[in-house]
Amino acid sequence: MKTLSIEEYYQGILNGNRSMLSKSITLIESTNPNHHELSQALIEKCIPHSGLSYRIGISGVPGVGKSTFIEALGLFLIEKEQKKVAVLAIDPSSNKTGGSILGDKTRMNRLSVQENAFIRPSPSSGVLGGVARATRESIILCEAAGYDTILIETVGVGQSEIEVKEMVDFFLLLMLAGAGDELQGIKRGIMEIADAIVINKADGNNEVPAKNAAQDYKNALHLFPANENGWIPRVELCSAIEHRNIDQVWKIMDDYFRSMHANGFFENTRRNQSKFWLKHAIESQLSTLFYTHPQVKEQLKTIETEVVSGKLSPVKAASLLLELFKN
Amino acid sequence: MKTLSIEEYYQGILNGNRSMLSKSITLIESTNPNHHELSQALIEKCIPHSGLSYRIGISGVPGVGKSTFIEALGLFLIEKEQKKVAVLAIDPSSNKTGGSILGDKTRMNRLSVQENAFIRPSPSSGVLGGVARATRESIILCEAAGYDTILIETVGVGQSEIEVKEMVDFFLLLMLAGAGDELQGIKRGIMEIADAIVINKADGNNEVPAKNAAQDYKNALHLFPANENGWIPRVELCSAIEHRNIDQVWKIMDDYFRSMHANGFFENTRRNQSKFWLKHAIESQLSTLFYTHPQVKEQLKTIETEVVSGKLSPVKAASLLLELFKN
Repeated sequence: MKTLSIEEYYQGILNGNRSMLSKSITLIESTNPNHHELSQALIEKCIPHSGLSYRIGISGVPGVGKSTFIEALGLFLIEKEQKKVAVLAIDPSSNKTGGSILGDKTRMNRLSVQENAFIRPSPSSGVLGGVARATRESIILCEAAGYDTILIETVGVGQSEIEVKEMVDFFLLLMLAGAGDELQGIKRGIMEIADAIVINKADGNNEVPAKNAAQDYKNALHLFPANENGWIPRVELCSAIEHRNIDQVWKIMDDYFRSMHANGFFENTRRNQSKFWLKHAIESQLSTLFYTHPQVKEQLKTIETEVVSGKLSPVKAASLLLELFKN
Repeated sequence: MKTLSIEEYYQGILNGNRSMLSKSITLIESTNPNHHELSQALIEKCIPHSGLSYRIGISGVPGVGKSTFIEALGLFLIEKEQKKVAVLAIDPSSNKTGGSILGDKTRMNRLSVQENAFIRPSPSSGVLGGVARATRESIILCEAAGYDTILIETVGVGQSEIEVKEMVDFFLLLMLAGAGDELQGIKRGIMEIADAIVINKADGNNEVPAKNAAQDYKNALHLFPANENGWIPRVELCSAIEHRNIDQVWKIMDDYFRSMHANGFFENTRRNQSKFWLKHAIESQLSTLFYTHPQVKEQLKTIETEVVSGKLSPVKAASLLLELFKN
């Protein structure tokens, strides 16, 4: 990968040059340790221009219609609300399978040709410091490039939702009617972190089951404890493919942002996002330092086996490894 | 605190001497770094005698009747099932308030006088390496002392449930009828990790509301995705104060353990518990090493403020701190 000067990346981003934004994200995602310093310096420069967006996480199992929904929402926001929309994908599993949630861009071909849209698929291979790190940093760059709505797509089956929840202002969970097999892919714990549950594919013969499902979810959410910020999660129906009710889904988010600005929780969330990010950055760097330590690497497997078989206590095992690390 | 020889502690535990078990746990909970080596050696010796119990987490907000429930369950298990029952409390908040969930033992005065019961309140002050660490280790000691049922009480308002979930075989959530104010204290995400929800105080005028609540929770749990181990969480009613339906609650756990032994997930859970413990022990020791580093300590607050105000990127901030740490 040929790198440009930091000024070139920076000016390109501030001018809203999509190709330069794309190249900058590639730099951030690079596994080459030499690119790390440059990308960090770039983020440093962009931070003062960041923060002026709504960061929205969107999750759901494969088949729920995430791409269609995001395209419909993106088009609505650009056409009716005069927004600039960036779509980022986070999918840790793609590291292993080589697959990506967004896949080829053609799945959002109407959105991708919009001047006010920027679509970035999930990195298809390992990222130094993790996909979450790269996504957090990509948000900053997109904001510096003038995008005021950042949609972060995630697949709803792993730990990634919790990480995404920590980096967004609003978390939307897409569901389907028929709480059976489709649900099996959603990891337990995801439903409770949602600020809204949207039942997609509420069209044709599916409209009645979708309405029933919505009522069921409303009843279920009612049993959940309230959020600290006073927000009661809402349930809505939509048909992304028919572009129906997308305005009502947006209205939920709009209500949410208004109410969070009014009660001060918006700023609160942002401060927490920064703190989470710092905490994760420390953990990640500390953990890399530890697990790449030559002697730790050499002994870890053996020691773990002794722990699992009950021959060694985990605390003692950790102390042994820490001793190797300190030397 | 006067310490004994490791042999004295060890033999006392193996002989099921409750006073010695109690002293050993005090050693584990000690904030005196000099006790650390002795307590670790003791755990090392006890590990081969551990593991032969059911580890059960019990959570619920204050007022739900946890102590009354645990006493009723404990008495049932001792009298009808010939069990030996240890009750441990985990309550990180007690570090700050000085309060303890179990409080004075008199709250379980019928259970505490049983020969086959051991009750240990939450540590009332800071514990080196955290309360979770001490609880994990206390489980080992109780098992080595012959307790075959370990009830771990937790308060249902904090992060502690997730930690408890990782150290137990079964997680029970106590609830009350009337999904209103009582629920506000339960942290979001707790309901979804429960293997059973038990509505307590299903007595007198409260019986009908409790039945309705049980039905609501059944409907809600139905919407949750299934557990990886094939277990579908159950809902039951009981009146701990009248000792009613405690046998039915135990039947759920018994069914669970049978089915987990049959499908191999019991062993699987235990291996995961060991791995979690090792991971937490490494994280905890690494984190202590980092955050107690003199230069890190000196700079952390300033750097965090710069991050939150947007002057410095979290990743750069972490790198700066890591540089201080490495030197």
